[in-house]
Amino acid sequence: MAKASNSLKAAVKAAAARGKPALRAIKGEATKLASAKPAAKPGAAKAGGLKPVALKPVPAAADDAPVIALNLPQAKLSPAMAAYFKKCQDKLGFVPNVLVAYAFDMAKLETFVAMYNDLMLGDSGLSKLEREMIAVVVSSQNRCYYCLTAHGAAIRQYSGNPLLGEQIVMNYRVARINRRQRAMLDFAVKLTAQPWSVEEGDRERLRRAGFSDRDIWDISAVAGFFNMSNRVASATDMRPNVVYHGQAR
Amino acid sequence: MAKASNSLKAAVKAAAARGKPALRAIKGEATKLASAKPAAKPGAAKAGGLKPVALKPVPAAADDAPVIALNLPQAKLSPAMAAYFKKCQDKLGFVPNVLVAYAFDMAKLETFVAMYNDLMLGDSGLSKLEREMIAVVVSSQNRCYYCLTAHGAAIRQYSGNPLLGEQIVMNYRVARINRRQRAMLDFAVKLTAQPWSVEEGDRERLRRAGFSDRDIWDISAVAGFFNMSNRVASATDMRPNVVYHGQAR
Amino acid sequence: MAKASNSLKAAVKAAAARGKPALRAIKGEATKLASAKPAAKPGAAKAGGLKPVALKPVPAAADDAPVIALNLPQAKLSPAMAAYFKKCQDKLGFVPNVLVAYAFDMAKLETFVAMYNDLMLGDSGLSKLEREMIAVVVSSQNRCYYCLTAHGAAIRQYSGNPLLGEQIVMNYRVARINRRQRAMLDFAVKLTAQPWSVEEGDRERLRRAGFSDRDIWDISAVAGFFNMSNRVASATDMRPNVVYHGQAR
Amino acid sequence: MAKASNSLKAAVKAAAARGKPALRAIKGEATKLASAKPAAKPGAAKAGGLKPVALKPVPAAADDAPVIALNLPQAKLSPAMAAYFKKCQDKLGFVPNVLVAYAFDMAKLETFVAMYNDLMLGDSGLSKLEREMIAVVVSSQNRCYYCLTAHGAAIRQYSGNPLLGEQIVMNYRVARINRRQRAMLDFAVKLTAQPWSVEEGDRERLRRAGFSDRDIWDISAVAGFFNMSNRVASATDMRPNVVYHGQAR
Amino acid sequence: MAKASNSLKAAVKAAAARGKPALRAIKGEATKLASAKPAAKPGAAKAGGLKPVALKPVPAAADDAPVIALNLPQAKLSPAMAAYFKKCQDKLGFVPNVLVAYAFDMAKLETFVAMYNDLMLGDSGLSKLEREMIAVVVSSQNRCYYCLTAHGAAIRQYSGNPLLGEQIVMNYRVARINRRQRAMLDFAVKLTAQPWSVEEGDRERLRRAGFSDRDIWDISAVAGFFNMSNRVASATDMRPNVVYHGQAR
Amino acid sequence: MAKASNSLKAAVKAAAARGKPALRAIKGEATKLASAKPAAKPGAAKAGGLKPVALKPVPAAADDAPVIALNLPQAKLSPAMAAYFKKCQDKLGFVPNVLVAYAFDMAKLETFVAMYNDLMLGDSGLSKLEREMIAVVVSSQNRCYYCLTAHGAAIRQYSGNPLLGEQIVMNYRVARINRRQRAMLDFAVKLTAQPWSVEEGDRERLRRAGFSDRDIWDISAVAGFFNMSNRVASATDMRPNVVYHGQAR
Repeated sequence: MAKASNSLKAAVKAAAARGKPALRAIKGEATKLASAKPAAKPGAAKAGGLKPVALKPVPAAADDAPVIALNLPQAKLSPAMAAYFKKCQDKLGFVPNVLVAYAFDMAKLETFVAMYNDLMLGDSGLSKLEREMIAVVVSSQNRCYYCLTAHGAAIRQYSGNPLLGEQIVMNYRVARINRRQRAMLDFAVKLTAQPWSVEEGDRERLRRAGFSDRDIWDISAVAGFFNMSNRVASATDMRPNVVYHGQAR
Repeated sequence: MAKASNSLKAAVKAAAARGKPALRAIKGEATKLASAKPAAKPGAAKAGGLKPVALKPVPAAADDAPVIALNLPQAKLSPAMAAYFKKCQDKLGFVPNVLVAYAFDMAKLETFVAMYNDLMLGDSGLSKLEREMIAVVVSSQNRCYYCLTAHGAAIRQYSGNPLLGEQIVMNYRVARINRRQRAMLDFAVKLTAQPWSVEEGDRERLRRAGFSDRDIWDISAVAGFFNMSNRVASATDMRPNVVYHGQAR
Repeated sequence: MAKASNSLKAAVKAAAARGKPALRAIKGEATKLASAKPAAKPGAAKAGGLKPVALKPVPAAADDAPVIALNLPQAKLSPAMAAYFKKCQDKLGFVPNVLVAYAFDMAKLETFVAMYNDLMLGDSGLSKLEREMIAVVVSSQNRCYYCLTAHGAAIRQYSGNPLLGEQIVMNYRVARINRRQRAMLDFAVKLTAQPWSVEEGDRERLRRAGFSDRDIWDISAVAGFFNMSNRVASATDMRPNVVYHGQAR
Repeated sequence: MAKASNSLKAAVKAAAARGKPALRAIKGEATKLASAKPAAKPGAAKAGGLKPVALKPVPAAADDAPVIALNLPQAKLSPAMAAYFKKCQDKLGFVPNVLVAYAFDMAKLETFVAMYNDLMLGDSGLSKLEREMIAVVVSSQNRCYYCLTAHGAAIRQYSGNPLLGEQIVMNYRVARINRRQRAMLDFAVKLTAQPWSVEEGDRERLRRAGFSDRDIWDISAVAGFFNMSNRVASATDMRPNVVYHGQAR
Repeated sequence: MAKASNSLKAAVKAAAARGKPALRAIKGEATKLASAKPAAKPGAAKAGGLKPVALKPVPAAADDAPVIALNLPQAKLSPAMAAYFKKCQDKLGFVPNVLVAYAFDMAKLETFVAMYNDLMLGDSGLSKLEREMIAVVVSSQNRCYYCLTAHGAAIRQYSGNPLLGEQIVMNYRVARINRRQRAMLDFAVKLTAQPWSVEEGDRERLRRAGFSDRDIWDISAVAGFFNMSNRVASATDMRPNVVYHGQAR
Repeated sequence: MAKASNSLKAAVKAAAARGKPALRAIKGEATKLASAKPAAKPGAAKAGGLKPVALKPVPAAADDAPVIALNLPQAKLSPAMAAYFKKCQDKLGFVPNVLVAYAFDMAKLETFVAMYNDLMLGDSGLSKLEREMIAVVVSSQNRCYYCLTAHGAAIRQYSGNPLLGEQIVMNYRVARINRRQRAMLDFAVKLTAQPWSVEEGDRERLRRAGFSDRDIWDISAVAGFFNMSNRVASATDMRPNVVYHGQAR
């Protein structure tokens, strides 16, 4: 782990030396937080005493990439967002780059965080793992590097099954999931690839698989959300935190 | 206009008589507000003294459709949302059905409203009309009835050019728009149809057309947002307020 | 209405002043007829005493577009075609631009008119409205601005339901149509998007929905015809008469 | 099988005698039968009393197919159409099945024939071979068995190059054609596959390749026509005359 | 070149003597030449000293095409491959160009030949005709000129039904084949166009059509093999031997 | 590592206990070899003294999957293949499941191994890493779980860059590779997705990026090979050895 974080620190220093703008150099408040405590994994307690996966020293080509390919200097974090970034740091060991990317504007960051947390962590008939599965099948359709990396890791963590994460990234049809989950993912994929063709028959199929109308809303809203996030990430060449790659393997 | 609102009132009454659940019947607080003051059009002042377009009595088949095809009883509006619905009523003459659809859960409604208003009405290098144009080209790719109807009307209103609204709904390539706007819409369409293929060359094309990096974020974020909303609308069979159809023709 | 026709006349004058070729300037015999009696709507008698919808003064950008983007001087109308253009003028209040576009060659104009009138107005087990619905779903698949505009207006007029016209332009799956009509439109869409995959099973589905073999021919022939017209219109950037936009709203 | 090869040999001899490429002339026994009683349709027992058209002895699987999969009894040929069928018989040695298919209704048959002959045989800046090449690239996109067979044969005949016919049926990009023809076919393919995306730049490319605006109309009209015919043929399972297969090999 | 054209002339004469069209007959000297000095490639002047392979006098555009568009001098044939080429010559009358194309490297040629012969000629529950049918439907999906030509001819030969070959080249859905064969081809087409979507249900459909698990392997392996060969052929612009075009018409 | 191999052994035992057919249960000679020496990673020496990544105990759902979904009992390994399996065991620590899958028939196994080894390990102007990159971009287009897993691991090992493996699995456009490699992968992707559209311009682009004609053959042949293997794997639901997932993270 030490090597990995050294390599990250080196990247930050190198970028700073090159005089790149704040966001590109991953510096400023978020960055300080991010470098303070590398890679304690979220969900690790739940997963039961797993030790951090050792991350190989990553070649420079990968880790000096800016968070996004747009030059948007980071704004001063609002108190709420400063607290939230600190919470990420404390619980995850890092601040997810998507938050760093949105941090050029507090209104945008706050609405993104509010919507994300409501959808992915709020009350729902779908488990958190199921919501992550939807996130990943949508991101796989859209081939979104950021979201596949970050949410693929989340599936590995929530499920305790590293293969499941890989399978849903690559082709969800090979995953050994139950009928209910398959119906849910089929719906999310159809909604992503051909939204115009979703009709009552598709909703009926979900109901027959055991989903309530509220569940159908949640499946749709999560699938919709990642159809948004995938596009913001692809449009800006958003790069995931390197630490995700090694999580929960 | 009288006839149209009569027909709407009739639909509400008929639905109520059938004992449908709150949201399906378009009743409750939002509905009362919606029926109180039919169809004063926003942007009408700007368009300069045009009289309301007369809306033909719409056949029952169309206007007794529920707002969405999910049975989600409306929650009690939070004070902020009650105020917001009243503001919609006062300024638009109705509460957009997308808000009625989200009103089963105040957290979801509030984050949706916050994100929407920041993106579409907040500070940006893109005009409001340009943001609506992005909304409509994305919705045209996704063939989203709700968003094409509501945001097609917005283009007609903001531009004072009813043909422009129709053209962007049908095929934006036929619209007589400037080079900057064409580059913006080409980017939004590519980001919608093939998000994985957006690369630095695409961002460079926007920069050459005069867009700043912040503008590129905004184009991406609006395009992303409607890729989300289109899917929530299609997944739930969301129906636009009938009044949109007649606006700014 | 006055304003609209003024604006059209102004466009014609302006174009003439710029010395554009005949077809581009919408002048000559057809044009004179076209300007003679602005915008009495076809089907108005049938629809029962509806007053003309007021058309806003359309910005210059839209209405000085030439009929097509090819420089093809109009030929002298044959007696039959002169009579037909006069009939259009008398019944519709204008000569549809597609006829103006074909008028550079009488043989082409006459065969087009003969085929169009046989298919769309001749004897058939399909109502005229149903044939227009096929025209519009095909044109929606092909995103043809001319045909969506002209035939979307026809659906609004024939059905007396402006929403139905909008819905079939945008996404026919949201329209509240009967099972027979849905089967018909599904067939037309499949035939448009994947003609190679149409097989006996598809014809059987139409028969089960109540269509005769002759009806199946008519569905196919109308869908085929608009697959032709859409392409001629897109290839030449054909522009619909502005008057269509305001019809039967 | 003997008869068929005899008939082929006779055709080859006759053609050689006239100094034309062999396959243009294919007449003889099959043709005589075909002309004896024009357009008797297979499957006609069901349709009521028409006797099957005699075709060459080919394996049973192929030659007992009806002309189309719809039961539409042939109408009495109008004098004009009777003369036209006779002319086909005299010049081609057979009546093309597409004409037999349309012969259930004289108005439809006559408008089809008029449009076909104007487009494919009338005055144009495009050679007849070039128009056939457009017909086949369009039909290849749409995988239309009838049109690929009939018009693939026409390319073989007009060009005297059997390989050219095969290549345009299979993948026109492998054909050794000149730059002008390649531009023409690229346009026809784009217009077929993505008509909505054809714009001024595409027309400019044709002009730079030497085409006039009238030529561009003709390219578009021929491409449009086969987008119609392909769909009528696929919708009805139209079967080409078997004789086409052996022509001009 | 002289010899080749002599050989073609001889073939034409011989064919004339037999009363067949010239193209059918192409065997004899040309083939002998082909084996005497294997794989002289056109364009070879550049490659250094190889003489062009002689083909029949067909229009210049077609017959001066090199076997592939890459400059890869032929290697000395290994004894096994020399024997194999001789066997092709003796049995087919020519060496298929795909073998000439691979002959720049004996290891590649030998593994290709071994795999091809095992799959297409080895023991299997599928007939050789059925394997050729799979080859052609896959090649039709991929629009591979080389494979459609060579294996289309094989279907005509194995089946004795020239129409069947044409139909599977153009659109296999029109072929009059049995239910088992249709299931087999549907599977091959799905596996070609959307390999990610093949699942247990697809295998079950084959089993219900009478295929064993070993048969399913063979269908998959043949479909896979032509997905490989089609791409090598398209990537290198591989040209089929002209003789294929005339075979078994 | 111990846990992982325990879990694999447990799976083998469990499968054996259930009495599944040979291949499905991963038993027999290949299986014994496979369990003998779990997961010494190839390339580990090169990567420089990294300790094996600990693989979590994988849930039963994943690792008791049969190698393929077809019931094909393994044949007796030929001496050559027995030696080859032993070599895999010694060098990789396991026998790749694709070999186990082909082991029902020695002729098929041997030709597959010969072609694979020639293409991926034989002499070429492309490095082994580059060939693996082609394998993975092709497999990503085809969403092939087996090949993405096995060859994604190979990229991680050969490059010593775990991120590079992930990126090429997810969306190769985000990888920081050089211009030559990008051209190579763009070609492979186009050849996979639209083989019919590859033309001389595409080969010229490779030549300009520094590739020889022999390199172009190799790029094409590797891309072709994985278009075959992906389909055999998808058709049979081939499952990768679990050990790949943890390699070279």
